[in-house]
Amino acid sequence: MENFHLIFVGDAFDPHAEKLKLLVTLFVMFAAAKIFAEIFERLKQPAVVGEILAGVLIGPSLLGWVVPSLTTETLAEIGVILLMFTVGLETEPRAIFSVGRTALAVAVLGVILPFVLGFGAIIAFGASLELAQPTIVAAFVGAAMVATSVGITARVLADMNLLSHQSARVILAAAVIDDILALLLLSVVAGMASPDGVNWPKIILTAVLAIGFVAFIVLAGSRIVGKVAPKISQLHMRDPLFGVAMALCLGLALLSEQIGIAAIIGAFLAGMALAEFSDQEHLLHKSETLVALFLPFFLVNIGMQVSLEAFKSPLVLGLAALLTVLAVGGKYVAGLIAARGLGKRMSKQIGMGMVPRGEVGIVAAQLGLTLGVLDNRLFSAVLFMAVATTIIAPPFLRSLFAGETLLSREGLVVEENPVHLQ
Amino acid sequence: MENFHLIFVGDAFDPHAEKLKLLVTLFVMFAAAKIFAEIFERLKQPAVVGEILAGVLIGPSLLGWVVPSLTTETLAEIGVILLMFTVGLETEPRAIFSVGRTALAVAVLGVILPFVLGFGAIIAFGASLELAQPTIVAAFVGAAMVATSVGITARVLADMNLLSHQSARVILAAAVIDDILALLLLSVVAGMASPDGVNWPKIILTAVLAIGFVAFIVLAGSRIVGKVAPKISQLHMRDPLFGVAMALCLGLALLSEQIGIAAIIGAFLAGMALAEFSDQEHLLHKSETLVALFLPFFLVNIGMQVSLEAFKSPLVLGLAALLTVLAVGGKYVAGLIAARGLGKRMSKQIGMGMVPRGEVGIVAAQLGLTLGVLDNRLFSAVLFMAVATTIIAPPFLRSLFAGETLLSREGLVVEENPVHLQ
Repeated sequence: MENFHLIFVGDAFDPHAEKLKLLVTLFVMFAAAKIFAEIFERLKQPAVVGEILAGVLIGPSLLGWVVPSLTTETLAEIGVILLMFTVGLETEPRAIFSVGRTALAVAVLGVILPFVLGFGAIIAFGASLELAQPTIVAAFVGAAMVATSVGITARVLADMNLLSHQSARVILAAAVIDDILALLLLSVVAGMASPDGVNWPKIILTAVLAIGFVAFIVLAGSRIVGKVAPKISQLHMRDPLFGVAMALCLGLALLSEQIGIAAIIGAFLAGMALAEFSDQEHLLHKSETLVALFLPFFLVNIGMQVSLEAFKSPLVLGLAALLTVLAVGGKYVAGLIAARGLGKRMSKQIGMGMVPRGEVGIVAAQLGLTLGVLDNRLFSAVLFMAVATTIIAPPFLRSLFAGETLLSREGLVVEENPVHLQ
Repeated sequence: MENFHLIFVGDAFDPHAEKLKLLVTLFVMFAAAKIFAEIFERLKQPAVVGEILAGVLIGPSLLGWVVPSLTTETLAEIGVILLMFTVGLETEPRAIFSVGRTALAVAVLGVILPFVLGFGAIIAFGASLELAQPTIVAAFVGAAMVATSVGITARVLADMNLLSHQSARVILAAAVIDDILALLLLSVVAGMASPDGVNWPKIILTAVLAIGFVAFIVLAGSRIVGKVAPKISQLHMRDPLFGVAMALCLGLALLSEQIGIAAIIGAFLAGMALAEFSDQEHLLHKSETLVALFLPFFLVNIGMQVSLEAFKSPLVLGLAALLTVLAVGGKYVAGLIAARGLGKRMSKQIGMGMVPRGEVGIVAAQLGLTLGVLDNRLFSAVLFMAVATTIIAPPFLRSLFAGETLLSREGLVVEENPVHLQ
């Protein structure tokens, strides 16, 4: 990147240098994402995988053109918030209620299985890792393997126009529950690792708030929006519906992050509260445009986290591979069992839909490093698991959903473009 | 803001705290902008002014809910880049050629007059300011008063649907030339202030590159896009036109910042290169949506720069007021004289359209502080001038353009909504 910075930039121009760095980040990430999306579409592979791999290429482990920074995190967060808001807009609350029970089973079993498998793997590996506190480390790795990054699956299904598929609804609802369970589990484990111990009253408070917040928005959000809506169109500002919708999205994202659950859950719920609103179609188009510009930053940023350096050690590489296999297997089998009532095909779709760990796994890994629970080897292995599950799932999802047709938004039966499928 | 951070956020959650800060920034800036836009629309005042004042309110001088940071700069830069790209999409190169000569005169006189006035004011104030190097300081203040922030004017005119008005075209073309002249002037003055002196070969190289870059894109950009366009639609990626257009926007923004002219000039030129393209209407709608989300951050960020602290000193307050009057008068009179051939009404419109100094003036002030040329008093006064000119111009612009009608994009004669005008 040196050559980008040195040309024509005198030492005198400080704000200039900062701006230049931002512009390099914006252009390189976006252009790389688009080039890889194009290549992967031509190879009949999901574009999201190409965009993540673009991040591996331009990131610190290979070319080093852009490195993860506050700026890339900001762009990535905006991208995934907008994505989940858009997915919410396409998800009517009623559709979620109807799959509530299955989703709960998928979430609970999808938390237990990966946790137990991850915990067991570290205990089994314990001797060769020479850990001081194997139980706490094992519990942390298990907890980091729990939370699904629903954005990736949502994107793949949106690309196939299958967001209102029964399996997609189960996956979305399960992911919300899964996020709450993972948060609580991670809080308990992080407490175990800290000298103060587990702060149970705080964790119980968080649980109550998280469940209360989600339940309130799911149950009452749509009705409140319906009542307020006529007043929105009377506002004098430019495009008031868009303004209020975006404020709601950002506000609920903030609120849910404050409570402790991921910001994307708040954005998703904001979208869902607006899903039954009459002007939602107009909003959906706008929201999709925002996603088109910002989602690439989210995907590329995931890829940029990978550090290939660490895998020179066969132990780390073996551990990373083992955790990845267990992470895929745990969620997939959980789906197979918990959603068996919906038939084999749908239970497979649901299991695979819960596999990506993406940014949630990355955050857990970073937290473990910060807390001193994970050393560099374990951090790299968990990180690898998070990114690898995210890359592995989309091609399988595409083939598991291949040939499915759905009523499109315009009410016509549409089939996935056969050029893009085998 | 303390209360936002303390609730439910354990010390253990580091990435969480960072994310929370981002979400507070996003929500507070956006919501404040929208509330003030609404209030100002109801008061029949330009929304942009309300959004800037929202920044003064939530910024460090009053509430302190959000302070300028790398994140706010990033969001603001994205906002103004997208704005100028959109303005470019509505500006056909032919329209710019036809006003080239007037625009050049407006730009040149609009550089000379404010520079001379600013220089003179500091020399006159010299004694009471007790400056060590009054000439260099005066030259720097003069140079900081030169560059127009065309985004504000463009936004006001776009809101009135008057971007293809003859005066708007002169303003846009003059702003591009003005930006190059201001860059060169600031480089010379910054060189004077540095121990190494003015690096003339480098400044001449910058001038040649800047003029060459702009001329090349204006002259050849549209033709190149026309030739490449049929190939774009054959790409396999999702919405290839949008992807390529955004990559072009970010790429030219980066290139122009590298050369030394503002990134927004590159974004504007990218838009202009696409303006004659057949699918431009589809692109324009998408681009306007992006602006709707991100422009508020640009406007609020301008307001957040204001430090009311400094104005406890009557000297600073007087200086700030004087610089503001001269900055408004200099550009306005330059327009009156240089565009007199277009008639009184249009020359007034053009003069007022060049008045806002916005983010360009702010960057110049920061540069002066970094270089040690401006002390805190002068920094505050120049900053005040930049923000005040930006707030003063829009209401005058609205009344100078009041009652103008134009062919709308759909080919119908439209009139500005009479509710919003006196």
